[in-house]
Amino acid sequence: MTASARYDVLALGHAIVDVIAHAEDAFLAEQGMTKGGMQLIDTGRARDLYDRMEPAIEVSGGSAANTAVGIASLGGQAAFVGCVADDELGRVFSHDLIASGVQANLATAPDAATGRCLILVTPDAERTMNTYLGAASLLGEQPLNEALIRDASILYLEGYLFSSPSNIAALRQAAEIAKQAGRQVALSLSDRFCVEAQRAALKDLIRQSVDILFANEPEITALYETGSFDDAVLHAGQHVAIACLTRGAGGSVIKANGTLIRIPAASVERVVDTTGAGDLYAAGFLYGYTQGMTLQQSGEVAALAAREIIGHVGPRPEVKLSELLAALA
Amino acid sequence: MTASARYDVLALGHAIVDVIAHAEDAFLAEQGMTKGGMQLIDTGRARDLYDRMEPAIEVSGGSAANTAVGIASLGGQAAFVGCVADDELGRVFSHDLIASGVQANLATAPDAATGRCLILVTPDAERTMNTYLGAASLLGEQPLNEALIRDASILYLEGYLFSSPSNIAALRQAAEIAKQAGRQVALSLSDRFCVEAQRAALKDLIRQSVDILFANEPEITALYETGSFDDAVLHAGQHVAIACLTRGAGGSVIKANGTLIRIPAASVERVVDTTGAGDLYAAGFLYGYTQGMTLQQSGEVAALAAREIIGHVGPRPEVKLSELLAALA
Repeated sequence: MTASARYDVLALGHAIVDVIAHAEDAFLAEQGMTKGGMQLIDTGRARDLYDRMEPAIEVSGGSAANTAVGIASLGGQAAFVGCVADDELGRVFSHDLIASGVQANLATAPDAATGRCLILVTPDAERTMNTYLGAASLLGEQPLNEALIRDASILYLEGYLFSSPSNIAALRQAAEIAKQAGRQVALSLSDRFCVEAQRAALKDLIRQSVDILFANEPEITALYETGSFDDAVLHAGQHVAIACLTRGAGGSVIKANGTLIRIPAASVERVVDTTGAGDLYAAGFLYGYTQGMTLQQSGEVAALAAREIIGHVGPRPEVKLSELLAALA
Repeated sequence: MTASARYDVLALGHAIVDVIAHAEDAFLAEQGMTKGGMQLIDTGRARDLYDRMEPAIEVSGGSAANTAVGIASLGGQAAFVGCVADDELGRVFSHDLIASGVQANLATAPDAATGRCLILVTPDAERTMNTYLGAASLLGEQPLNEALIRDASILYLEGYLFSSPSNIAALRQAAEIAKQAGRQVALSLSDRFCVEAQRAALKDLIRQSVDILFANEPEITALYETGSFDDAVLHAGQHVAIACLTRGAGGSVIKANGTLIRIPAASVERVVDTTGAGDLYAAGFLYGYTQGMTLQQSGEVAALAAREIIGHVGPRPEVKLSELLAALA
């Protein structure tokens, strides 16, 4: 029997502050960016791109961190493990996490800058991300808090961590610790290009450790190298206990134990910025799931949380999601 | 005859990054804050208050800087003089100013942190400000760019600068240079408590140098120590060529050369955050005025710019104001 856990979810991911500006499609083309994707950039490119960007706002982000904040906002117990630097943006990231009610377990890397993501939001509300990892890439060089991992019902990993060898090692080690403690492991595939670059390693991890998989359509079809979403759903259903697969405005499907549940996307007045939509979907699902809701109900909470986030700029909720949830019930 | 000017407006003020969070009225009371006001805070208080605040967003601010950005957004030529530090927030401030099309003339103070304003937005959309000046307070210790002042039709000063002796000296010197070059001087009273603390010095400056005065009702009645707005309007009309006096949802009046023009507030669907409303009103008026519009027209542009800013979080326009203006015409 598994010991009771202090945290519903422990999220492991890149600690990132988002720098968000509007941009035209022409700017993306001129800068050679793939719309909707994430690419890693170095210091020089980060400086050059920032110089070319419109006025921006700074707001804490990071995929798994956004998910942890979403769970806390819904009323769940969430913790986050990441790595920042001893600088202004590191303090911003830490403050926002703690103020959101997340148990922040942040390492501080010396001689580094806190990671940031230069995000361009086009008029269609799509976000295109350029990530300078900085200190976030050094997470794997810090000792893992094993007790914390054992003390969470679910370990949630972002696929973005597959960007550096030491982070991959940390992620694998964390998954092993969780499994040995009888905990469940959830993984978000994060990005289509990450999937293409790390397909074999991701498949290995999924086969060995993952119970709950989150992915959008481009990611899951990239993983299984198929042009068919339905085909990808079938594959995912064979490899994990629960697969939550999203299709933007097309809603999502949850494949679990041979059954397929369809969740419509919650209707939204105006989509402003899709940054964080997948992160908050995962937050909603994991909150519902750890509260003992049905998969259908968990999927509906997921859609509700995703809807809140795409209605404004930035990847973190502007209102207490628990209040939205209460209003729904 | 006055030489033609490269800039419509040169703004002199505190270089500040805003840190904006939601807060309940009870929090303001508990923290001993006066709602709607601005108070200066030191390093320790800034740290303590930040720790107690909700998750925040960071966005460039500073009263006169917001006005400069508004003028540029409307299509005018604006410059800004201020002082930052060599840190992340300094780079954020500089980037946002330049990306907004403002000619940024920023000094960098060593051994200081860039100024920041911890802003609490209550459910009624009122903003309450706690300013840690940092490097912004060292503006007066940097050499003034005299040529730049002579090259602007209007020198715009924020009353907030009356917070340190060296900044007051710099402001007075700048006003003298502008007058000697045959330029006009505009002043915003900035804050009711600033006015009460510096009434005599402000009156001196107004008498000696100010052509265009911006103030809201609490500020102008505090300046003339009267409970009557109409009374304050009369006083202002005797001391400056143009007085632009705002009353929030009650619109504004422009008193100039013995005539009184009433400008209704532009209607707004939902007031989200009033931060920057006065700054953008000044931007709209000064843009219209320097473009040769009538006072009535300039006041209408002012109301339009203020309306844009109160419809979202943050003190800088989210859309090109020139496009809003074109849509109006």
